[in-house]
Amino acid sequence: MKLLRYGAAGAEKPGLLAADGTIRDLSSVVGDIDGAAVTPEALARIAAIDPITLPVVEKVERYGACVARPGKFLCIGLNYADHAAESGLPVPAEPVVFMKATSALSGPNDPVIQPRNSTKLDWEVELAFVIGTECRYVDEAAGQAAIAGYFVCNDVSERAFQLDRGGTWDKGKGCDSFGPIGPWLVTADEVGDPGDLSMWLEVNGHRYQDGSTRTMIFKPGFIVSYLSQFMSLQPGDIVTTGTPPGVGMGQKPPKYLSHGDRIRLGIQGLGEQEQVVVAPI
Amino acid sequence: MKLLRYGAAGAEKPGLLAADGTIRDLSSVVGDIDGAAVTPEALARIAAIDPITLPVVEKVERYGACVARPGKFLCIGLNYADHAAESGLPVPAEPVVFMKATSALSGPNDPVIQPRNSTKLDWEVELAFVIGTECRYVDEAAGQAAIAGYFVCNDVSERAFQLDRGGTWDKGKGCDSFGPIGPWLVTADEVGDPGDLSMWLEVNGHRYQDGSTRTMIFKPGFIVSYLSQFMSLQPGDIVTTGTPPGVGMGQKPPKYLSHGDRIRLGIQGLGEQEQVVVAPI
Repeated sequence: MKLLRYGAAGAEKPGLLAADGTIRDLSSVVGDIDGAAVTPEALARIAAIDPITLPVVEKVERYGACVARPGKFLCIGLNYADHAAESGLPVPAEPVVFMKATSALSGPNDPVIQPRNSTKLDWEVELAFVIGTECRYVDEAAGQAAIAGYFVCNDVSERAFQLDRGGTWDKGKGCDSFGPIGPWLVTADEVGDPGDLSMWLEVNGHRYQDGSTRTMIFKPGFIVSYLSQFMSLQPGDIVTTGTPPGVGMGQKPPKYLSHGDRIRLGIQGLGEQEQVVVAPI
Repeated sequence: MKLLRYGAAGAEKPGLLAADGTIRDLSSVVGDIDGAAVTPEALARIAAIDPITLPVVEKVERYGACVARPGKFLCIGLNYADHAAESGLPVPAEPVVFMKATSALSGPNDPVIQPRNSTKLDWEVELAFVIGTECRYVDEAAGQAAIAGYFVCNDVSERAFQLDRGGTWDKGKGCDSFGPIGPWLVTADEVGDPGDLSMWLEVNGHRYQDGSTRTMIFKPGFIVSYLSQFMSLQPGDIVTTGTPPGVGMGQKPPKYLSHGDRIRLGIQGLGEQEQVVVAPI
């Protein structure tokens, strides 16, 4: 299934992309696409409904973030060997973990807001997933089984905030609008092998990233297992899994985003995003 | 006012510590002590009620975390010059920012669960606060005004996970039970100057930390202003502000926590916490 959220920011409704290409309103089935809606039981309840019996949404003005109100927004860094190399950093021996602020979440086509004093605004196409089952000290197989579904994430980053301002990466990863996710949450059964998906990102029509999850170092099931050694994971928690080569920081010379730039990105089977960079209010 | 949450984990009710020392049930006034309950309007609504008209809670078996479901749990590192020195790190030129997982939150007297494979479990008494007003690019005065109230936080840390496992600090800061907060959320009007509060922490009766918020480098209003340059802050977001000297890592030789150890900590006017260290399930 392809689940989604549509409507104005803060007033999104849950929806489903039906096989006939129509969007159907899921409001009568779940309150929102959130932790409660992505448990195995809730997904089974949604799957049992014939989409044709649900109201058609005639026009979608805006897609929201495809998961609402996650408890955590966890991130794996340097998870593609070639991207570690272009960042001038060694391939990690174990996953690099950081967090994005949950207030960074935005819709897949919402503007990316360049923060005040930003000089090194960058992009990262990433495979992200949402947890459907609470996890503590799980093994890789149970970790894989705990994933409810996958989606596209642009792990928007401000490199000067991230790397030049002291402390951890969190200052440059959690700015408002730095976490577009969606358009769809594609359930795990429909994705099949998450380790063989092509992925790409373009800025103003130039393709900067053209990779595949085949070159991920740590795979989703392992990542869940690994994270669960350090903290419990709850349904609705989001994890984004790192980016392949081709970020702005890795260009020679580096290429950073400016107001008016247009970013397009996508992952095989998970849909596409398009964002315009705008100045802060 | 001193607001609190009481009852079994996951089923806490909102309460208030009245001037006569009784705890009163706030369930008829607010659904919970969360973001919606700590806005200026909601706090004014609670303050307008005579506590004597609210039902008395005869017996409190357990205090919960004094704030429920924060969107973010932000932390300032190395914010006391002497603690930076004992950590072998320079005094930061600007705040060091990291995040704790919101799933780390626990009640002030809940057990601290030592994670599997933990070898360097440590303590940190800290002044924490909750945001009451949304902030974006605010100055220090507006940042101070956005703070709804203050409370004690034990920023429990696993130093090996934090420092020896690669990447950022987040692996060693967000384990389950690593964020006891409370017992009370003391509203800002009642705290007065947050920059002149004594604070202490003992393990098995030995006083390891004996400091004051007087020696904080970056004060709460500045911290809010600073954070708001990197991300918006919402009502209910929690910020903990760093620890004075005396953590286990700073002892000669280092002293780490083991199963059965008893931690007591407190901050002037904000109450006390007591935790026993237990093994993971």
